Amino acid sequence: MEILEFTPRPEQYAWTFGGTAPTHRIKPGTVLRLWSDDAFAGRLRDITDLPSAALDARYLNPQTGPFHVEGAEPGDTLALHFVDMTPARSWGASATIPFFGGLTGTDRTATLQEPLAERTWIYQVDSTRNTVTFEARSSELSLELPMAPMLGTVGVAPALGEVRTSLVPDEFGGNMDTPEMRPGSTCYLGVNVEGALFSLGDGHYRQGEGESCGTAVEGAMNTTLVVELIKGGAPTWPRIEDDDHLMVIGSSRPLEDAWRAGQVDMVLWFSELFGLDRLDSYQLLSQTSQAPIANVVDTNYSVVTKVAKSLLPQTQVYGGMHRHLRETARLIAPR
Amino acid sequence: MEILEFTPRPEQYAWTFGGTAPTHRIKPGTVLRLWSDDAFAGRLRDITDLPSAALDARYLNPQTGPFHVEGAEPGDTLALHFVDMTPARSWGASATIPFFGGLTGTDRTATLQEPLAERTWIYQVDSTRNTVTFEARSSELSLELPMAPMLGTVGVAPALGEVRTSLVPDEFGGNMDTPEMRPGSTCYLGVNVEGALFSLGDGHYRQGEGESCGTAVEGAMNTTLVVELIKGGAPTWPRIEDDDHLMVIGSSRPLEDAWRAGQVDMVLWFSELFGLDRLDSYQLLSQTSQAPIANVVDTNYSVVTKVAKSLLPQTQVYGGMHRHLRETARLIAPR
Amino acid sequence: MEILEFTPRPEQYAWTFGGTAPTHRIKPGTVLRLWSDDAFAGRLRDITDLPSAALDARYLNPQTGPFHVEGAEPGDTLALHFVDMTPARSWGASATIPFFGGLTGTDRTATLQEPLAERTWIYQVDSTRNTVTFEARSSELSLELPMAPMLGTVGVAPALGEVRTSLVPDEFGGNMDTPEMRPGSTCYLGVNVEGALFSLGDGHYRQGEGESCGTAVEGAMNTTLVVELIKGGAPTWPRIEDDDHLMVIGSSRPLEDAWRAGQVDMVLWFSELFGLDRLDSYQLLSQTSQAPIANVVDTNYSVVTKVAKSLLPQTQVYGGMHRHLRETARLIAPR
Amino acid sequence: MEILEFTPRPEQYAWTFGGTAPTHRIKPGTVLRLWSDDAFAGRLRDITDLPSAALDARYLNPQTGPFHVEGAEPGDTLALHFVDMTPARSWGASATIPFFGGLTGTDRTATLQEPLAERTWIYQVDSTRNTVTFEARSSELSLELPMAPMLGTVGVAPALGEVRTSLVPDEFGGNMDTPEMRPGSTCYLGVNVEGALFSLGDGHYRQGEGESCGTAVEGAMNTTLVVELIKGGAPTWPRIEDDDHLMVIGSSRPLEDAWRAGQVDMVLWFSELFGLDRLDSYQLLSQTSQAPIANVVDTNYSVVTKVAKSLLPQTQVYGGMHRHLRETARLIAPR
Repeated sequence: MEILEFTPRPEQYAWTFGGTAPTHRIKPGTVLRLWSDDAFAGRLRDITDLPSAALDARYLNPQTGPFHVEGAEPGDTLALHFVDMTPARSWGASATIPFFGGLTGTDRTATLQEPLAERTWIYQVDSTRNTVTFEARSSELSLELPMAPMLGTVGVAPALGEVRTSLVPDEFGGNMDTPEMRPGSTCYLGVNVEGALFSLGDGHYRQGEGESCGTAVEGAMNTTLVVELIKGGAPTWPRIEDDDHLMVIGSSRPLEDAWRAGQVDMVLWFSELFGLDRLDSYQLLSQTSQAPIANVVDTNYSVVTKVAKSLLPQTQVYGGMHRHLRETARLIAPR
Repeated sequence: MEILEFTPRPEQYAWTFGGTAPTHRIKPGTVLRLWSDDAFAGRLRDITDLPSAALDARYLNPQTGPFHVEGAEPGDTLALHFVDMTPARSWGASATIPFFGGLTGTDRTATLQEPLAERTWIYQVDSTRNTVTFEARSSELSLELPMAPMLGTVGVAPALGEVRTSLVPDEFGGNMDTPEMRPGSTCYLGVNVEGALFSLGDGHYRQGEGESCGTAVEGAMNTTLVVELIKGGAPTWPRIEDDDHLMVIGSSRPLEDAWRAGQVDMVLWFSELFGLDRLDSYQLLSQTSQAPIANVVDTNYSVVTKVAKSLLPQTQVYGGMHRHLRETARLIAPR
Repeated sequence: MEILEFTPRPEQYAWTFGGTAPTHRIKPGTVLRLWSDDAFAGRLRDITDLPSAALDARYLNPQTGPFHVEGAEPGDTLALHFVDMTPARSWGASATIPFFGGLTGTDRTATLQEPLAERTWIYQVDSTRNTVTFEARSSELSLELPMAPMLGTVGVAPALGEVRTSLVPDEFGGNMDTPEMRPGSTCYLGVNVEGALFSLGDGHYRQGEGESCGTAVEGAMNTTLVVELIKGGAPTWPRIEDDDHLMVIGSSRPLEDAWRAGQVDMVLWFSELFGLDRLDSYQLLSQTSQAPIANVVDTNYSVVTKVAKSLLPQTQVYGGMHRHLRETARLIAPR
Repeated sequence: MEILEFTPRPEQYAWTFGGTAPTHRIKPGTVLRLWSDDAFAGRLRDITDLPSAALDARYLNPQTGPFHVEGAEPGDTLALHFVDMTPARSWGASATIPFFGGLTGTDRTATLQEPLAERTWIYQVDSTRNTVTFEARSSELSLELPMAPMLGTVGVAPALGEVRTSLVPDEFGGNMDTPEMRPGSTCYLGVNVEGALFSLGDGHYRQGEGESCGTAVEGAMNTTLVVELIKGGAPTWPRIEDDDHLMVIGSSRPLEDAWRAGQVDMVLWFSELFGLDRLDSYQLLSQTSQAPIANVVDTNYSVVTKVAKSLLPQTQVYGGMHRHLRETARLIAPR
């Protein structure tokens, strides 16, 4: 088992999907132990650090990678199995940023109102209790919330020669901001360019569905994952499999289009897996789908279509890749 | 404890919120044992019953009620606690209806494509196993799915003298189609007219989030509920409380506006409950919100903002009304 | 030629489409000379009159009517030809209203920001110069703008037994807020209930496309129109014909759905008028359509699909009704 | 006056904004005489050429350029004045493309319906009569339509290191598809990278507002333009000035956000030009705005906010650049 550990230096951060030379070439089957900085590139460290002063729009959401996966060609499927995500700092940060977020006018949902006030929250991590602590700024309220590590951003180089900022989610993955991208999950991404060139970042110690204010409990993350390659079978939209669910993440605007994209892909997947025609798949999905919103704050919004395997006929997707990766994961010593 | 049992005759069905004389006047505290017909008014009974032949757009989604609640005045809050929902037929029906549903062009998302084919599915109910069975039409596949009864439609007479078809969800409640409207839940609705004039219907034996094809496992339902009245405190959007969660249901188009409406109401509710300013509430919601989509098929789309009480400071909403109604529910003999 | 003059007393104002008894029964062919109050019911008369103090949400957009048209049955087409619209006051009013308008968060596009400030503008009418004058409040700027009278609101009773506030545009017409509803235009509306029950109001002395801040130069209006009835042929969406254009007004959310609805109806209309299949009509529309936005502020947004007759094969719509009504109009003495 | 003529060879076509080396370095003040291929790269030449067979998604919307403008730096404003656009072929092409266009389900507005049929139309150009001829495919109808040349796509390299396909409109301009990009217009674009790197293409011999079916009368184009540079003053969204109007083009989804973005920018522009506060500008825009839709078919939708100069106080924008360029244009000999 090849294991690669990598902590990028700040000048090695990637800020885009596509357009960046790979930091490493790896073989399918490689285990990666990666450190990623938080979405603020570590610039919000105290409640006195305000976004408008501390942040630079050109340097948000740094990615670790990209990784060139040997043998990956357009039309193939990259499988990324997340073994472990552990906070790499003892604190996480969240903030309201002027004209960014779900409950404010933005550059697109443009209004003439004054922006909401900026504010930064620092969450202390308690690794023993496995919690992060919300400290209200307007009262004495302090609340321990369960840690629930996830990666906001996982993606490959886009199609059509595009280069997209790491703030965008789309068919290539990217900044989907779904809590489903967590340890135990396998993410399937369609490969658009030779080597796939995937990267990851935007660790969240915890995030609500929708990421309402635009930022989660943002934190540097140590992530262990296994990388595999499936020849062919590229899905249109990112898919996630965990022990209990099949998922598709659609990203677009308006929000119903993000939902529609993921739903149609799941209907087609059902038909392929279960030998149903589209109408039967549509019907089955109608009675079994969960539909948790992922984000309503990014350049595209994201919605997860999620179905419990227990409701579906027994099946094996991508040749049993997820089970295989789960078994591989067990062989990896915890860091 | 006053108990009222009511099974409307077809000519007593209500087809609108507002605009219909009450079938009964009841006192706060009354227990209702209601029968409601399915959204098709019972007209789809066999897979050979096709919507375009069997259904009449004027007679969809029949409501049981409305009920005039004595003492209810505009600005008050109606609390409906659902004690039990039990299928009133041994089968449920679902169907694809031309130009209706989430994954087809519709009257509004108008396209020039041919409609999807019509098809009707009949689900057999197994009360012992507590399941409904999906029978594929394009293959031999048969799948038992857990029963999960809920009401698609619960609402009061709208404000501004409006009369809305029972197909619409909005601030007055109505056809929200959320699986959260199930036994054990208390729904809070703002009162717009004297007597509140609430009604319910659209029983679903099971429904996925989003109600993708536009119809759930539609079935006649026996519902037991307790009706209470809270003076004042009318919420802008319907709220639901169960033992473990606080919820708000926003309904609008596009889907992000349904989400925004519910989220903003939850932020305001947090501020009221926990003494936080809006920014702190927004931050807390950002890290704790669940956001399951309810429907992407009705005249307005609906999204649930849902937060686990376990993540929040201990609090009591509406003077402990939900706990009180849970206790009342225990005193009611099962039907 | 039967001529009916009517100036409603305030207690005769209608506030809804549907749900209101007709003020008059008229025969097809009748000429109406109507006075309608402004959308504020005349309550903003000075720049010191602020909406939050002066307005009542229950009493906005008063309608003159409804009129019961003898012989009108569901499925028929009502033709309303506007002969003349003349300001009935020497001033018009406009205002920013908290959480209402296109460039602010609203009850639906809900945000946590503070509302924009309220402000009222009074426009003096100069009937000789045919202008209204914008007086800036933040500077000495004063600008004469051409008068361009139109009616924001024209509609019939809705289908499905609904009653809608006069603030809503939809298939029944209503508050579409398009500058195309002006003298010289004929509006075709599908009849949903016996007698059609149409009403009108919301005079604008001038309005930009989109009605950005939510209010035009609102003013009481004297309107002369001719009412005709066409048996059958009810259009799905309101249509307008003037000497030079065919138009359809779609109303929905998001804005693309308002556009789609009107576009699809125009494609079908082209096919009917010119004997083209749908693809050819779609192609012809693609190269000839104008698409001015009507409103992005009301409960539904509205978009006009508009095509110059000069680009189309010669045709006669609704049996030449518009030309007939233009000729009738010439016979009517100016008031 | 420096004049540069350029007809790119196919291997010189640019397919993206950003990410492509400039074909030329030019000085501000240069006159360009450019040939651009059509959006199909000339592959639809006959009604038997169907998109699915003839087109390759990687090679659509070829651009002529990019041009490096000497001295252009981020934050500057590029001014492109279009002197002349003349069809470079004797025919134009239009087509329906599966799952592309405004009145069909698409990759984003994903549905399960069958696609609309593919069809190609060829329009003959009559340079003497200045027309293109629509030939119906389902009937004998033939219609001469006025020629109205425009460029669908004009843009600079994007910000944040992005590379976007030439199919996308956004803040950097790109595939806005507005008929306002025509001879006599000056387009102002904010510069994001050194040299601006602007390119153009996607000539339309004629297009309706909205570009309903997704394709205009697409044709190779000879374009004469003058390039100027304004230091500083970069607008957020593309602006257009002609002799009679000021315009801003916003691009986003849903369509109301495209409108909002352009409207807010026009409000800010009004305030800057006329010394009004935002509320006064908002009011003035509300009564004067035209709002023709540009496209409802591309990756982002586009809406034009357009105001007649005749309604506004006399002013001079960008130091009278448009008038200056109009005068320059008069000195250029017709090709």
